[in-house]
Amino acid sequence: MTTLLIVSHPDIIESGSQQYFLSSLKDREEITVHHLENQYPNGTINVAKEQNLLRQHDRIIFQFPFYWYSATPLIKKWQDEVLGEGFAYGTRKKPLAGKDFGLILMIGVAEREYQAGGEELFTISELTKPFQAMANKLGMNYLRPLPVFQFFYMEEEEKMNTLIRYWQMLTMDNDITLANRENWLIEQLQQIAKPNLEAADREVIMFAIERIQENRFKIDELKMVLDDMFLD
Amino acid sequence: MTTLLIVSHPDIIESGSQQYFLSSLKDREEITVHHLENQYPNGTINVAKEQNLLRQHDRIIFQFPFYWYSATPLIKKWQDEVLGEGFAYGTRKKPLAGKDFGLILMIGVAEREYQAGGEELFTISELTKPFQAMANKLGMNYLRPLPVFQFFYMEEEEKMNTLIRYWQMLTMDNDITLANRENWLIEQLQQIAKPNLEAADREVIMFAIERIQENRFKIDELKMVLDDMFLD
Repeated sequence: MTTLLIVSHPDIIESGSQQYFLSSLKDREEITVHHLENQYPNGTINVAKEQNLLRQHDRIIFQFPFYWYSATPLIKKWQDEVLGEGFAYGTRKKPLAGKDFGLILMIGVAEREYQAGGEELFTISELTKPFQAMANKLGMNYLRPLPVFQFFYMEEEEKMNTLIRYWQMLTMDNDITLANRENWLIEQLQQIAKPNLEAADREVIMFAIERIQENRFKIDELKMVLDDMFLD
Repeated sequence: MTTLLIVSHPDIIESGSQQYFLSSLKDREEITVHHLENQYPNGTINVAKEQNLLRQHDRIIFQFPFYWYSATPLIKKWQDEVLGEGFAYGTRKKPLAGKDFGLILMIGVAEREYQAGGEELFTISELTKPFQAMANKLGMNYLRPLPVFQFFYMEEEEKMNTLIRYWQMLTMDNDITLANRENWLIEQLQQIAKPNLEAADREVIMFAIERIQENRFKIDELKMVLDDMFLD
């Protein structure tokens, strides 16, 4: 699976959260990081190029700061120009149909405020309806979003947990079965355990992979026992 | 009441619906028409000037084509830059609190598609949650929106009816009692019936005003009779 990560931020260098997540993506061949302000500093979008990029990837993700409960001006411009009639909808063939679409939102306010009775009044699901409607129009699968609330107040461990969810959003199949999540984790570990890693570190990772696989065999055995019991 | 009408459209000259509504607003002193693309052709917004405009008006309206269920890129940029912390929120004093806020949306798809089961899946109320959340954050009164569906397919009479609703959105107090709507209508008629109008036309309008007032007296009389009956 290949992923096109469309990032937009009016001042990305100054954004610690954006830098934290983006710097973790180096050497990930299956992810194309596409920073719009960097690509189009004067705001003129190459529509044909963007449409080709969309065709070449299986999953499209927007990553932006959730200012005023919506995307950045440049993402909106990108939507209006790239997702035009004749390409994105309005024809018999929809080039984006069947692909995944998801949102990664950097949010400055605490999660508890996003509900009735909270200061922001509405949930993230309610506020992102325009993107759900867009995915619907394009025939895309709308993924669970990844809202990152108040990154700067997070403890180190919470940041690391969020990073794992970030990688899952970008690379894990949209299938939350245990087997799928285990396969994904083993793949990630195998990528880290490349030959250039120090031997001791490599050993630890290989050990972790074996334990995950061992656990799975046990779960599979238990399942077979259970299946037999109910078949008899 | 004074109204600031913030209009944004990537190509307003070509938009028949925008031209139809805007051309009806000439000589309306209480309405400031503020076309963002015209004001800021290179996209650089004068934040202090915009904040002053906001302070000087009682009602703020956004008028834009509802592409991808959201505002234009320039309105989003305006929100991000003009409605900054320290001006719009985050201080003890909120300069926009108590003012009215409303949306006028030009929509190319039929109204019936905006519901569960329709092609657009969600209602206008659901899709405009980000603007409702904005009004909530700023302490503004969120008005019923005016969505104009498929203007070009409208019969002439429907266009005229929509125009009346447009003027109401811009100038009528947010109070839908019969008395208020009648007062508003009489005011509009009086504005048309200026001395430079032809005498015969002026006569017709004055006659209409008298009829409306006459009807109201009758309604008031009937109400008094009813009140008396229930008081006894």
